[in-house]
Amino acid sequence: MQFTSERHLDDGLVEHEFTLGEIPGILWMPASASVSAPVPLILLGHPPLGLRTMYPRLAARARHSAAEGFATATIELPGSGDRPRVPAVEQARADLRRAMAAGEPVSDEIVDALILPLVEKAVPEWQAALDGLLSLPETDGPVGYSGGVISIGIRLAVAEPRIAAAGLFAGSFVPRSMVEEARQVTIPLHVLLQWDDEGNDRQAALDLFDAFGSKEKTLHANMGGHTGVPEFAGEAVAQFFTRHLK
Amino acid sequence: MQFTSERHLDDGLVEHEFTLGEIPGILWMPASASVSAPVPLILLGHPPLGLRTMYPRLAARARHSAAEGFATATIELPGSGDRPRVPAVEQARADLRRAMAAGEPVSDEIVDALILPLVEKAVPEWQAALDGLLSLPETDGPVGYSGGVISIGIRLAVAEPRIAAAGLFAGSFVPRSMVEEARQVTIPLHVLLQWDDEGNDRQAALDLFDAFGSKEKTLHANMGGHTGVPEFAGEAVAQFFTRHLK
Repeated sequence: MQFTSERHLDDGLVEHEFTLGEIPGILWMPASASVSAPVPLILLGHPPLGLRTMYPRLAARARHSAAEGFATATIELPGSGDRPRVPAVEQARADLRRAMAAGEPVSDEIVDALILPLVEKAVPEWQAALDGLLSLPETDGPVGYSGGVISIGIRLAVAEPRIAAAGLFAGSFVPRSMVEEARQVTIPLHVLLQWDDEGNDRQAALDLFDAFGSKEKTLHANMGGHTGVPEFAGEAVAQFFTRHLK
Repeated sequence: MQFTSERHLDDGLVEHEFTLGEIPGILWMPASASVSAPVPLILLGHPPLGLRTMYPRLAARARHSAAEGFATATIELPGSGDRPRVPAVEQARADLRRAMAAGEPVSDEIVDALILPLVEKAVPEWQAALDGLLSLPETDGPVGYSGGVISIGIRLAVAEPRIAAAGLFAGSFVPRSMVEEARQVTIPLHVLLQWDDEGNDRQAALDLFDAFGSKEKTLHANMGGHTGVPEFAGEAVAQFFTRHLK
C-alpha cells in the first residue's frame, strides 16, 4: 500500500489517496486519530460506477463517520473507474440491459455472471487493503463494512474474521449461491431496504434478510427508490456501528 | 377527566392518575413542562392485559420519553383490568385459544371478533382522553401514538387528526378490514416487527406495512419473539418521535 497524496479537508478530516498495486483507494482519517489513540475503521462499499463518480457520496459518508470517531476507506472495484474492464461482467451487463429493455425477467445466469466474478475478484482485494490499513498505527480493529454490492459484503462477512459488523444495502441482484452463503454470516448486521427500489426484487431482499445466520440482524425498510435512502436511515447505520465497533 | 393522585418519581417525573368517567388512566409529566413551556404528548398503547400488569413496561417507556421532553399518557382498554369484560371479545379469545391448541389456523371470523369490538370501543375513549389531556396548560400538540394493539393505532391515525405521527408494533392479529383502512393512513409511521414473533404472521405484517398510505413509513425488523424487542429498537422509536413532534 502506497500513499500518494494527503489533503486536509474541513472539519479536520484528512484524505489520503493510496494505491494497492494497480488499485486506487482513499483513506479518510479523523483529526482525533493518533498513534496513542487509534480509531476503528469502516470499509465503505459502493456500486461499480467508479470511485470518481461515487466520490461525493463516499466523502459525505466518510465525513459523517469521522464525526463519530471512525476512519473510513474504500478501493476501486474490479472493472470500474480506470481499472481494466472484466469481459464476463461487461457481457452480463449487456445481457441485463437487453433483458430489461425487452421486459424479460432477469435470469439466474445473468445475475451469476454479473455478480460472482466481481465478488471473486473484489473480496481478496478488500482483504489486502485491510492488511495495509490495519498496519497503520492510527487505526485498529474492530472493522466494519458498509454498503455497496451486497454480495461482496456477504462474502467479506463470511471470509474475513476482522470484520465485526456490517451495514448492508439490499439494493442489488443477489445470486442464489450467495443467499445460501448468507446463512453462514454470524456477525451483527444492519440491512437497509428501499421498499420501492426499481432495480431490486423486494421479496428476494426479504428472503435474503431471513437467510442471514446472524443472531443480531435488523432490517430498516424505508419508502422510495434505490437512491432515496432518507437521511435518518444513514444516521441509524452510524448508530449501529457505534454500538458494535466502539 | 378527574385527577385522583400525584406522585413524584425519580428523575423529576410526575405521575398523575386520573379517571375518565369509569376509565382509569395515567399521565406522566416531565418536570421541565410548564404553562409557559408546554411539552408534546405521546399516547402509550399497550396490549389488553390490564394497566396494572403493564405498569412496569409503561412506566419505563414514560421515563424514556420524559428524558426526550415528552409527556406520556395511557388509559385502560375496554374489557381489561378492573373494567367490565366485553362478552364478544371474551368469546373470541376462547375460540382463539381453542383453535391454537388444536393447531388450527386462526380464522378471519375469530380475528374480527377479537379485534374489531376493541377498536370500536377504545378509539373514542382515547380521543376523549386526548380532549382532556390537551386541555392541560402543560401539554400541547402535536401528539404521537405509540405501540399497543396495532388496529387501534391504525384507526386513531385515520380518525384523529391531532395524531401527527405513530410508532406501531406489528405484533397482533389484524382484521382484513383494518388492512384496507391502513391505506387511508397518511401520517409518518415507524413500524416495529419482531421477525420470529410466535403469535404473529410475518407475511401479514409485511403486507400491512405495504398497505399503509403514508409517504414516510419505516419498518424496523429485529430478531426474536414478541417480547424480545431490543433496547436499541426502542431508542429508534424515540428518535422518530423527536423528529416528528418537536
